[in-house]
Amino acid sequence: MDTAGKVIKCKAAVAWEPNKPLVIEEIEVAPPQANEVRVKIVATSVCHSDLYHLYEGMHKDGFPVVLGHEAAGIVESVGPGVTEFTPGDKVIPLFLAQCRECHFCKNFLIHYRTKGKKIYQFSGTSTFSEYTVVRQINLAKIHPDAPLDKVCLIGCGICTGYGSAVNTAKVEEGSSCAVFGLGAVGLAAVMGCKAAGAKRIIAVDTNPEKFDKAKIFGATDFVNPKDHSKPIHEVLMEMTNGEWTSPWSVWGTQHALHSTVPAWGVSVIVGYTLIQKFSAQPGDLIPGRTWKGSLFGGFKGKDGVAEMVQRYMDKKIMVDEFITHNMGLDQIMEAVDLMRKAQCVRAVLKTSPQ
Amino acid sequence: MDTAGKVIKCKAAVAWEPNKPLVIEEIEVAPPQANEVRVKIVATSVCHSDLYHLYEGMHKDGFPVVLGHEAAGIVESVGPGVTEFTPGDKVIPLFLAQCRECHFCKNFLIHYRTKGKKIYQFSGTSTFSEYTVVRQINLAKIHPDAPLDKVCLIGCGICTGYGSAVNTAKVEEGSSCAVFGLGAVGLAAVMGCKAAGAKRIIAVDTNPEKFDKAKIFGATDFVNPKDHSKPIHEVLMEMTNGEWTSPWSVWGTQHALHSTVPAWGVSVIVGYTLIQKFSAQPGDLIPGRTWKGSLFGGFKGKDGVAEMVQRYMDKKIMVDEFITHNMGLDQIMEAVDLMRKAQCVRAVLKTSPQ
Repeated sequence: MDTAGKVIKCKAAVAWEPNKPLVIEEIEVAPPQANEVRVKIVATSVCHSDLYHLYEGMHKDGFPVVLGHEAAGIVESVGPGVTEFTPGDKVIPLFLAQCRECHFCKNFLIHYRTKGKKIYQFSGTSTFSEYTVVRQINLAKIHPDAPLDKVCLIGCGICTGYGSAVNTAKVEEGSSCAVFGLGAVGLAAVMGCKAAGAKRIIAVDTNPEKFDKAKIFGATDFVNPKDHSKPIHEVLMEMTNGEWTSPWSVWGTQHALHSTVPAWGVSVIVGYTLIQKFSAQPGDLIPGRTWKGSLFGGFKGKDGVAEMVQRYMDKKIMVDEFITHNMGLDQIMEAVDLMRKAQCVRAVLKTSPQ
Repeated sequence: MDTAGKVIKCKAAVAWEPNKPLVIEEIEVAPPQANEVRVKIVATSVCHSDLYHLYEGMHKDGFPVVLGHEAAGIVESVGPGVTEFTPGDKVIPLFLAQCRECHFCKNFLIHYRTKGKKIYQFSGTSTFSEYTVVRQINLAKIHPDAPLDKVCLIGCGICTGYGSAVNTAKVEEGSSCAVFGLGAVGLAAVMGCKAAGAKRIIAVDTNPEKFDKAKIFGATDFVNPKDHSKPIHEVLMEMTNGEWTSPWSVWGTQHALHSTVPAWGVSVIVGYTLIQKFSAQPGDLIPGRTWKGSLFGGFKGKDGVAEMVQRYMDKKIMVDEFITHNMGLDQIMEAVDLMRKAQCVRAVLKTSPQ
């Protein structure tokens, strides 16, 4: 493309400081350097982790920053040493790199500038932008026919929830499961439980309007903690007393742990935060419970994303059903507000035309 | 035996109330009823869980009680319906019943009387007594040549620690492991890690006098947190940085969790308590850590105990090395004090002559 090797000026939503609205700015995106790829972002969605960084985590040194990490796009140009991608490839950026070399791939990079200032990259991706540059280890090549304004969701929420069931909890056929919280990740966990053959999937949320959607993804039972005076784990224990001989996996934190069968229950935490603690007593785990965390659903980034896009193309997983709103990048604060108020499942923002 | 069918009067150490010394009393032990077995206890040892009940847990309704649950003895008589045991069988009482019928086998029974009062049974066993009555599901038959004043330790501490490595953590060959706390259970965990093929076993204790013993059981490295100004998990992280590609299992609570490799570390809690909490942040688990508890080392009671006694007879596990003191039942408070002051590994009390 004729932009290769040149700085690209484009629009992006910049977070100048914590707790303040994002501002659409013209930014300069540098050409990709060694082992880097510049991507035209076609569609991005807003995930709670973006809000965590903006409103909760508030990393002192993490601003200004372009947020966004759940997206899909097209390779614009590649830097030296890039062998896996060529311009025109459809891709999904990976916040969880898969370098196959180091252990953790934790480095942050700086690729953007606006108003003379450097802007940080978020989660190795920064997709609230028309263009971004990522390391080739932070990029997955996907099916050339994949609709980018749909499969962008595979870049985070869907893999995170679905994989937490099939990879992390390793839900077994005939299991009973419960999922606390029916946002996109929770719904994807429901879908994963169903795919794994769970016989009973209890959807738990304080907002009963979410139950219809959960049913679409495979939930069989629906519990609103507000309908009960006793603690929710006691409600679930009573509901499932006869099923304790089956594997039992529950998504959530303390209440989730206490809801599992003591002898072999598995509880999975997927909602990332470092500002809240959870606690339990040794006696809660000792009878045989397992407490696990799941990052990106235990998928390897490149392999997992490509595989999940393929499953979508084969109609083996649902993706369209997560999308409740479609808008443009300049409506990003509307999308952020919908997410904060839990009034959307996923809002997809078209950034550049496909 | 000529005592069959009759009440046996014998000595036992009675805990009359929480936080008070045990008192040697003459108690009356009723004949076994349906599916019950009366056992002459030949040797018993003191485990921290006995002290937990006496000094910490203080169940309001759990007194008076005969404590003790780590023991070995000989079947004196059996009640109707007992098919698995005959008088003369060498046995180990099981605090963790294996009925193969119900899910949890949690019922408490009353079998003893003294001074006209009923006495509670502790953990389904109550071995601080010359005789006890247990349900046949709370009893394991063991090798007829097993020395009871040694294998009594297999009734709790050794299985708990050893099994937490081989069954619960499923330590893999080539693993790195750390064990926090080098009492009997910790030492048995070290022995289990070694049996499972761990290449590095770090023994952690604030009392360096315990390191020699840990070495006998297979520990390769020794860390006293008091020798370091930084948090112990940082010390372990630095010590093992190059080994993060291997499985990593650590015994203990918070510090143990934080000492594990984020991506695939396994942390196991074995010390039972309901009066202390542990806590962590979702971000501690989400990168891929697993937090597990282990009860009786994940062994099925009957099968596990019989198998571990056989391993001892085959010289595949150490048992004698745990015993630091030998005494009589009337010295029980001496044994309790040694345990409270962490001045013994295991004190074995001979109750009835073999």
